[in-house]
Amino acid sequence: MAENASSGRLRVGVLGARGKVGAEVVKAVCDADDLDFTVGVDQGDPITSLSESGTSVVVDFTHPDVVMDNLRYCIENGIHAVVGTTGFDEARLDTLRGWLAEHPGTGVLIAPNFSIGAILMMRFSAIAAPFFESVEVVELHHPTKADAPSGTARRTAELIAAARREAGSPPIPDATSTGLEGARGADVDGIRVHGLRIRGLVAHQEVVLGGLGETLTIRHDSLDRVSFTPGVLTGVRRIADFPGLTVGLETFLDLD
Amino acid sequence: MAENASSGRLRVGVLGARGKVGAEVVKAVCDADDLDFTVGVDQGDPITSLSESGTSVVVDFTHPDVVMDNLRYCIENGIHAVVGTTGFDEARLDTLRGWLAEHPGTGVLIAPNFSIGAILMMRFSAIAAPFFESVEVVELHHPTKADAPSGTARRTAELIAAARREAGSPPIPDATSTGLEGARGADVDGIRVHGLRIRGLVAHQEVVLGGLGETLTIRHDSLDRVSFTPGVLTGVRRIADFPGLTVGLETFLDLD
Amino acid sequence: MAENASSGRLRVGVLGARGKVGAEVVKAVCDADDLDFTVGVDQGDPITSLSESGTSVVVDFTHPDVVMDNLRYCIENGIHAVVGTTGFDEARLDTLRGWLAEHPGTGVLIAPNFSIGAILMMRFSAIAAPFFESVEVVELHHPTKADAPSGTARRTAELIAAARREAGSPPIPDATSTGLEGARGADVDGIRVHGLRIRGLVAHQEVVLGGLGETLTIRHDSLDRVSFTPGVLTGVRRIADFPGLTVGLETFLDLD
Amino acid sequence: MAENASSGRLRVGVLGARGKVGAEVVKAVCDADDLDFTVGVDQGDPITSLSESGTSVVVDFTHPDVVMDNLRYCIENGIHAVVGTTGFDEARLDTLRGWLAEHPGTGVLIAPNFSIGAILMMRFSAIAAPFFESVEVVELHHPTKADAPSGTARRTAELIAAARREAGSPPIPDATSTGLEGARGADVDGIRVHGLRIRGLVAHQEVVLGGLGETLTIRHDSLDRVSFTPGVLTGVRRIADFPGLTVGLETFLDLD
Repeated sequence: MAENASSGRLRVGVLGARGKVGAEVVKAVCDADDLDFTVGVDQGDPITSLSESGTSVVVDFTHPDVVMDNLRYCIENGIHAVVGTTGFDEARLDTLRGWLAEHPGTGVLIAPNFSIGAILMMRFSAIAAPFFESVEVVELHHPTKADAPSGTARRTAELIAAARREAGSPPIPDATSTGLEGARGADVDGIRVHGLRIRGLVAHQEVVLGGLGETLTIRHDSLDRVSFTPGVLTGVRRIADFPGLTVGLETFLDLD
Repeated sequence: MAENASSGRLRVGVLGARGKVGAEVVKAVCDADDLDFTVGVDQGDPITSLSESGTSVVVDFTHPDVVMDNLRYCIENGIHAVVGTTGFDEARLDTLRGWLAEHPGTGVLIAPNFSIGAILMMRFSAIAAPFFESVEVVELHHPTKADAPSGTARRTAELIAAARREAGSPPIPDATSTGLEGARGADVDGIRVHGLRIRGLVAHQEVVLGGLGETLTIRHDSLDRVSFTPGVLTGVRRIADFPGLTVGLETFLDLD
Repeated sequence: MAENASSGRLRVGVLGARGKVGAEVVKAVCDADDLDFTVGVDQGDPITSLSESGTSVVVDFTHPDVVMDNLRYCIENGIHAVVGTTGFDEARLDTLRGWLAEHPGTGVLIAPNFSIGAILMMRFSAIAAPFFESVEVVELHHPTKADAPSGTARRTAELIAAARREAGSPPIPDATSTGLEGARGADVDGIRVHGLRIRGLVAHQEVVLGGLGETLTIRHDSLDRVSFTPGVLTGVRRIADFPGLTVGLETFLDLD
Repeated sequence: MAENASSGRLRVGVLGARGKVGAEVVKAVCDADDLDFTVGVDQGDPITSLSESGTSVVVDFTHPDVVMDNLRYCIENGIHAVVGTTGFDEARLDTLRGWLAEHPGTGVLIAPNFSIGAILMMRFSAIAAPFFESVEVVELHHPTKADAPSGTARRTAELIAAARREAGSPPIPDATSTGLEGARGADVDGIRVHGLRIRGLVAHQEVVLGGLGETLTIRHDSLDRVSFTPGVLTGVRRIADFPGLTVGLETFLDLD
C-alpha cells in the first residue's frame, strides 16, 4: 500500500465513477482538503489502474453483478473498500469474510445508508424509545414513490420495537375504539407508521415520542441526493482503523 | 336592553356558570377590561336574574336538554346569546330563526368550535388547497381519545375536498403501488388523514400542502383547554353587530 | 392578437429565455397541457419574433437595463406581460401606467415573488396576526446568504405590523429583563425576526402566532428554485383578465 | 434499611410533600405499581418519621436552607436521596461526598433537571453536533419569562460547543455581511441561540443541525409541569445501584 506515503493524505479511487452517484463521490473526494483522488474506474476500464495509481481506499457504487469481482481485486491488493452497492445477502458477506481472513489488514465497509442524519435519527430513536410511553413514526416523500411506508421508516420502527422489547417496555397506550380504516397508520412490529406523499418534498422522517407532559421529536430532512457524500467520506477516512468486514456506517461514528 | 348604559361596557351573564367550561368563561369575562360580569346561572337558579341584572349578552355552555328554553328566554328578552352547547340540528336552527324573526334586533351565535386557531387553520387550508398539487392532514392527540381521525381533522379534509372540487383541481398524485395496510392513512373525501396518539400531547393538527419545489404547512397546537375563551369573548363583543342567527364563529372574524 | 386563435390555447413567449430562470419557464410552458410555447428571445435575438409568432403573453425574466424597452414593445403590440425582472420603482411603474392607458386591453403584471407558498404564508400571517397576542418570524436559509433577516422575513414582519396597527392590536407581551444581546432577534416594526443559517437548507420561513392556550404556525419551505414556475403559469393564464398594471401576484389568486 | 423487605417493593418518602412539586411526586409514587409511599414530611413534621416508616428512598424538593440538614439525616440513616432542590455549589457537593464516604452503601442524586426529554435532547445534540457543518438552537417560551435565552438553551449550546471543540470541528459557516442587529441571535460559545416568547407556549426547544443536503432536528416540547415526574421515579428506582454522589440524572439512563 502506498497509503499516506509522503503527503500524509489518503489516495482514493472510485469504482462506478461515471454513474450518477459515483460522479458525486469523485467530486466530493476532489473537494476534500485531506484526500487525493487517484482514478475513476467504470465499465470497460482496467481495474488494475487502482493499484498502479497507489490507491489505498476505493469507493464502490457499481452493480450487484460486478461488485464481488471488484472487492476480490481490492482485498487481494490490500486496498480498503467503502461500498454502497446493494445486493449483499449473508452468503456474500460470508464470502467477503473468507477473503478478508487471508488479508487481515484490509477493511471492507458495506453500508445500506450513508446519510449520517438518517443513521443518527434511527439510533437516537432507538435509544430514546424505552424512556417514553408512546412513539410513532411519520415519513414524508414525493408522490412518485412506489412503496409505503418507506424502507427507512420500517427499519426505524423495527429498531424501536427491538429496543422496547429488550427494555421490557409495556405496550403503547391507544384507546382508539372507533374510526376510519387506516387512520392510525400501518403497524410495524407494534409501532404505528404513517406515510405522506406530497409534491415538492424529497425524503423526510419524523419520530415522535411522548411521556407525561412532554414530547421529544427527532426529524431528518433529506433535501438533496448529495446528502450521502459526507457519510462516504467518513467511511473513507476511517476504514483503515476497521480491518475485516463492517456492515453499517454506524460503527465508524463512535456513538457509544 | 341596558346595554352599555352609562359605562359604555357590555354587561355579560353566563348560563352553565358552575360547569367546567362555564367557570372559565366567568373568569375570562371578569378579567376583560371592556366587559362587566353580571350574573351566573346554573341548575336551580332563576333565569330571570339575567334580565333583572341588565345583562345584554349571555354565554351558554349548558346541555342540549335545556339550551332551547334558555334561548327562548334570551330572545324574548332581547338578550344576545353566544352558544357553545352542542346538539343543534336543522330543526332546532329553524325554530331559532322563527323566534328571532319576531325579535329582529337580537342575535344568536351557535358555534361548534370557539378556538380561533382551529378556525383559521381550517379556513387557510381550504383557501390554499386549490393552489397545490398535494395536501394531507395529520392530527396528533393524547392516547385516551376514542375516535380516529378527530372530528376537526375530518371537517378540515371535507372543507379541503370541497374547495378543490369547486376549483376543478385534478386528483392528488400518489404512485403508491405496494405497502402495508394503513400506511397511507384514512381517506376522507379523497384527502388522506393520519392520526397519531402520543402521551403528553393535547390536541394538535398539521395540514401539509405541496407543489413544485415548495410546501406550505399550517399547524394548530391546542395546549390548554382555555384556548376557547378568546373566541367566546370575540363572540360576545361582536354579537350585537350580527342580529339574527349565525352558525360558526368564522363570520365574526371578518376574514373576507 | 392571435390569442387562442383556433386551438383555444394561450401562445406564450419568453424574454430572457436562455437565462437560468427563463430556461425553467420555457420548460414549464412546454410541459403545460393548456399552453403553447412560441419563441424564446434573449440578447441578440429580434424581439419582433414575438409578434410574428402570434404570441399573446410574454414572460420576462431579463435585466433592469432592458426590461422597459421590452415592455414598451409588448404593450404597443398588445402582448400581455408577466414580469419577474427586478428594479421597478414608482417612476417606472408610472411610465408603464402611461403606456397601458393608451392600450387599455393589455395587461402587465410586475411580481417581486412568484412563489405561491410564500405569498400565501405572508397573506395568512397578516390575516391571523390581529387575532393573537404574540407573533414572531423565524427564517432559515443556507449559510452563504449575505443578508439577515431575509427580504421575505422583513416584508412579512412589515405586513404583520401593519395589520396589527390597523386592527388596533395592543403591544406584544414580552417580560424579558435580562439576557444575551441578540437572543430576542431583530426588531422589524415591533415584530421579532430570527434568522438561522444552516448548511443543507434552501429557503424556509415560519411564522409563530400564539394566544391563550393555543398557537398557530404557518411554515413555508422552498426546497427547489423551480418553485416559482407554478406562480408564473398562474400569471400567464390570468393576465388577460387583468388589463392595466398589476403589482404582486396576490391579486390574481382571488384570495378575497 | 427496610428496603424491599417482604414485598420486593421500594418504600419511598417525600420531603417537601406539601409543596407544589412535592405533591406531584407523592401522587406519582402512589400511582406507580412498583413503589410504596411511606410518609410525606414538610415544615413542622418530624423527619424521624422517615426511618420509623421503613423508608428506603427519599425524594427532596424543599429549599436550599434546609436541604443539607435533610440529607445529613438521610445519609446517617442509610436512606438514599433523590434531590431536585437547587443551590448546590462545589462546597456543598464536597460536604456531601464527605458524609457519603462514611456511609458507602448510600446514594445521593443531585439533579438540576428531571425532564428525560430535555436530557436526551441535550445529549443527542452534543453527540450529533460534530457530524454536521451547522448547528443552531431555538428556544420558545411563554412571554412572562424574564431571561433570554433560557438556561437550558445556554447549557445545550455549551455542550454542543464543547463536543465540537473536542472533535476538532471547523468554525460554523456564516456569510452574513449585512443585516439588522440581533437577527442572527445570541452567541453562546460560538453557537447561535434564538429565543421566542409566545403566549400559549410552555417550554420548548429545537436544535437544528445541517450538512450537505440534509438536516437533523431534535425538538423537546414540555407541555405540562408534571413532565419531571417520570425522571424522578427513574431516579428513585435506580439510586440503590449508584452508591455515593451522582450529579445529573444522565448517569442513570445508561445512554452509553
